[in-house]
Amino acid sequence: MAFISLPNCTNLAPKIPQVHRRSQSKPRAFASLPPTTNTPTTIDLPAYLTAVSSNLDAQVSHTLPLQPPHIVHAPMRYCALSNPTPLAPAVCIAVASDLFGVPHPTALIPAHALHLVHAAALMHEDMPALLDRTTRANRPTTHIKFAQNVAILTYDGLVPFAFAHIAESNLPADISLRLVAEISKAMGSQGFASGQYMEAQTLSWADGFFDKDCADQVHSMKMGVLVECGAACGGIVGGAKDEEIERLRKYGRALGIMYQILWDIKEKERGGFGKASYARGYGAERAMEVAEEMGREARKALEGFDPQGTQLLEGFADCGAAAHVGVGL
Amino acid sequence: MAFISLPNCTNLAPKIPQVHRRSQSKPRAFASLPPTTNTPTTIDLPAYLTAVSSNLDAQVSHTLPLQPPHIVHAPMRYCALSNPTPLAPAVCIAVASDLFGVPHPTALIPAHALHLVHAAALMHEDMPALLDRTTRANRPTTHIKFAQNVAILTYDGLVPFAFAHIAESNLPADISLRLVAEISKAMGSQGFASGQYMEAQTLSWADGFFDKDCADQVHSMKMGVLVECGAACGGIVGGAKDEEIERLRKYGRALGIMYQILWDIKEKERGGFGKASYARGYGAERAMEVAEEMGREARKALEGFDPQGTQLLEGFADCGAAAHVGVGL
Repeated sequence: MAFISLPNCTNLAPKIPQVHRRSQSKPRAFASLPPTTNTPTTIDLPAYLTAVSSNLDAQVSHTLPLQPPHIVHAPMRYCALSNPTPLAPAVCIAVASDLFGVPHPTALIPAHALHLVHAAALMHEDMPALLDRTTRANRPTTHIKFAQNVAILTYDGLVPFAFAHIAESNLPADISLRLVAEISKAMGSQGFASGQYMEAQTLSWADGFFDKDCADQVHSMKMGVLVECGAACGGIVGGAKDEEIERLRKYGRALGIMYQILWDIKEKERGGFGKASYARGYGAERAMEVAEEMGREARKALEGFDPQGTQLLEGFADCGAAAHVGVGL
Repeated sequence: MAFISLPNCTNLAPKIPQVHRRSQSKPRAFASLPPTTNTPTTIDLPAYLTAVSSNLDAQVSHTLPLQPPHIVHAPMRYCALSNPTPLAPAVCIAVASDLFGVPHPTALIPAHALHLVHAAALMHEDMPALLDRTTRANRPTTHIKFAQNVAILTYDGLVPFAFAHIAESNLPADISLRLVAEISKAMGSQGFASGQYMEAQTLSWADGFFDKDCADQVHSMKMGVLVECGAACGGIVGGAKDEEIERLRKYGRALGIMYQILWDIKEKERGGFGKASYARGYGAERAMEVAEEMGREARKALEGFDPQGTQLLEGFADCGAAAHVGVGL
């Protein structure tokens, strides 16, 4: 396969498989794929997220080939490929396609960019000066696989690349620009980066100490702001009205916090870090109640949208099902 | 002064003073400022760069106030303020205003963004895992003033902020989007970040070893690509034709390499690093010859533009004058 840099993203054929839905209605999403069967009963979240992840990998392989200088592009690909971060991109695609009928390759444009900046941010967070993780998703982290200086500069390659990817897409300029602004603000000093600062501060917490306000902020400004951004980007690329985008924001933020809590509960069971987690502060049972409340809040934010288009999004917010799904945080 | 985040940049009144010019013609730049005197003789490069630097600081103070969370915004401001990086932004402003009559506050939009991403990139490069600098421009580097984890995340705050700054400006969407693409590509894996990787590799060079190809690439992909980007952004915001932008690119790249060589000559005199510098490989005299050649090449690229508009740009490329000017690299 001949690679070129920064191609028009719509050249990639969509590959996300059909999702089993609760109703027999024709799905608005994935129009170029086979129609859903007549007897679906549940939304298969793991299959959907796996498919999104596979699509993102294909997209990264296509837009970010191993080209000279290899010493620069190899760690960029290592960081971005096989990185389990599909929740925010999946929500972006589901909002754009299911709610607004956006063709899947178009919905992939912001999803791909969001995936790249999230992967880059996690790479920074894994470094010794921050959370000092040596593995992520059963692979050595980027600074372990390569080196710390490489991991620092790989971010500097990936994030501008993500913005260039949007800027050079075939989306209308005003839409592209709103996506750039949305992702920039979600990832910057009023968003994800601030959440990372705050989480790093929790490293100094003494055993038994728990600051609820700080935990709230970490939950809200990491996964909360990220999935909110995914939902908003899906709405923007779908031409949603401002009022609709505001409701999608509420949906995404609650959903992101819900998944963060569920992830923290699992992490605590494994004896992991989780300094700022509700599971640590309140125990798994109370944390699960908060997660369920977040799921209800997310579903409530979907009221008023076409019910045909929200089935998948409601499925994401099913706390019981989501508890068994692994997503990359 | 009440600060708000991400205001319309044109709210800031231009403050760059008039530049003494070679001719008596009315300058096309800085239209809202007093006209030039009738007896100018030379272009005062240091005064111009100081004024640009002062404008950039005012812009940073205005767009990036010290707001909560302070632990995040204080290092962002520390990194971006009083940072001697005005060459690329100065070229951007000079191209936009002198060649294309763009009002100064509008020319400041891309100049400000470029200044921020450059300051962020230099902060990363100063870290122990890279060039391990403890001071920059007579101040402690960001990771020394704060901490390594802060310096890592401060980039993550500044770069998205720079793109949001453009995306939320009052420029036409298609212009803004081209600026985002231009800066992204200049700073990413095909540009500045690659130059930084290569320069880091030169740390392992044995005494006496010099690889001209590597030095060429470092020169070209650091200051070369950065000033090229400044010139191109000035053209884009000025509505230049594609052919004009290509000539401006040539001008900027040659100019950037020229200043890099001049800086390296000074650095070598001070006993500094300069692994990949021509001054190290060929000695100061031969390096100066290459710098002069770059200056001629830069001026040649200006041929065909309105001579009234290129006086300041030609002044930048005067190698003899530039040798006495300090710019931030």
